[in-house]
Amino acid sequence: MNPKEFRSLVAKGDFSKPTAGYCNNFVQTNMVVLPKEYANSFEEFAKQNAKAIPILEIIKDSHHSKKLAKGANLLNELPSYNIFEYGKLVKTVTNIEDYYNEDLVFFLIGCSFTFEAALISNDIPLRHVDLKTNVSMYNTNIELNPVDSFCGKMVVSMRPIKKDKVVDSCIITNHYPKVHGSPIHIGYPEMIGIDNIFHPDYGTFIDIKEDEIPVFWPCGVTPENVIKNIKLPFAITHTPGHMFVTDKKDSDYYEN
Amino acid sequence: MNPKEFRSLVAKGDFSKPTAGYCNNFVQTNMVVLPKEYANSFEEFAKQNAKAIPILEIIKDSHHSKKLAKGANLLNELPSYNIFEYGKLVKTVTNIEDYYNEDLVFFLIGCSFTFEAALISNDIPLRHVDLKTNVSMYNTNIELNPVDSFCGKMVVSMRPIKKDKVVDSCIITNHYPKVHGSPIHIGYPEMIGIDNIFHPDYGTFIDIKEDEIPVFWPCGVTPENVIKNIKLPFAITHTPGHMFVTDKKDSDYYEN
Repeated sequence: MNPKEFRSLVAKGDFSKPTAGYCNNFVQTNMVVLPKEYANSFEEFAKQNAKAIPILEIIKDSHHSKKLAKGANLLNELPSYNIFEYGKLVKTVTNIEDYYNEDLVFFLIGCSFTFEAALISNDIPLRHVDLKTNVSMYNTNIELNPVDSFCGKMVVSMRPIKKDKVVDSCIITNHYPKVHGSPIHIGYPEMIGIDNIFHPDYGTFIDIKEDEIPVFWPCGVTPENVIKNIKLPFAITHTPGHMFVTDKKDSDYYEN
Repeated sequence: MNPKEFRSLVAKGDFSKPTAGYCNNFVQTNMVVLPKEYANSFEEFAKQNAKAIPILEIIKDSHHSKKLAKGANLLNELPSYNIFEYGKLVKTVTNIEDYYNEDLVFFLIGCSFTFEAALISNDIPLRHVDLKTNVSMYNTNIELNPVDSFCGKMVVSMRPIKKDKVVDSCIITNHYPKVHGSPIHIGYPEMIGIDNIFHPDYGTFIDIKEDEIPVFWPCGVTPENVIKNIKLPFAITHTPGHMFVTDKKDSDYYEN
């Protein structure tokens, strides 16, 4: 199934599951939707924290993507959406047509699925992919650079990597700066404020074997966490794992 | 002082100290000198273990460099030489004219001084450089790929790096594959067979502060360790720290 076919299935309401493993080699993105009055501050906040919140496309005065998937309707071509009011998740829905007005700005944000494909094809297997579970994610003490009311701490994803592949995992993911890029931290979870590695704050705990080191990447859950943290009056995000499948290839985001 | 002037001072016997801090921005190398009968095996051994033993030039039937410092006399333009017999250091001398015969082959081998300059200029200070002491070096359990009689384990150098610069230190040094390149291991010394980080096997212990992680690079002491290990009948090396100062710039070994 190509991404266009996949998205039309989603739009019809025939697919509402997590998107991992679908349309392999095509870029999937996170999404954040905000009223215009917060959009400029959020855009600047993302720029100031580009490793955690790498913006790939901004859509204003419309609800159709132009760059990542020309013409895709962002109101119903994602499998699931979360509605937040004053930082609280109030509803999970499969389309957001009822919420749309021209005041909303759509941010499509890079997702680590892209570099995971690169890791796997470079002989670095990822256990959460093999097990088809979610990646382990943690709150940290890494302060984001604040902009206006936007502030908070970085959320990271953790992948256990074999000790002799850890450096390779840095070099490979560094070639994908628009989808979180290289790790933010290696080993020693307590140094970034993770007191209990066995209990992720989001996702599923992935066992760390004796010859493996936990490697931490900035995570696309960060903006959702900020929205909760600052109790933003209104926001919509994709439901974690239920990404926007674009027409761009993973290789389009490889940089030398 | 340019490298040519520096080497002529050395040749006259007017300089016999360690070379760190002299002729900055010019490449310094390790040297291994072997009888022809071992040279082919050693060359292949080095290729099979290129991160630890990156050969920059091989000189046969002559004792003058052609590529790294055209015309430089390798018999007296290094400040100090170690003579090994059956794996034992038998003498340290300031020139090797008495030992020369046309049967000897000279290997000039990349040295991490080159990437250290790059780290420092990229805002990653190195404490052993600031303190003007030697780097900490350790024997490990990392097996080298054996070739003929050449075998043994890798020696690594350790530099404590601030936690938020560890990944940068991988990315930066990865651009210098001919001078050991990226780290071989990050954190957790015991995972590579280092039981006591406070007692290096060579060099000086460099304190690891609370916000730092020990980062390990393959080390140019590896071939000397192999020569001792296999009790090679005859070999000459530079005396550790007393390097061959070449006419090449550090930037000549930057690769994209």
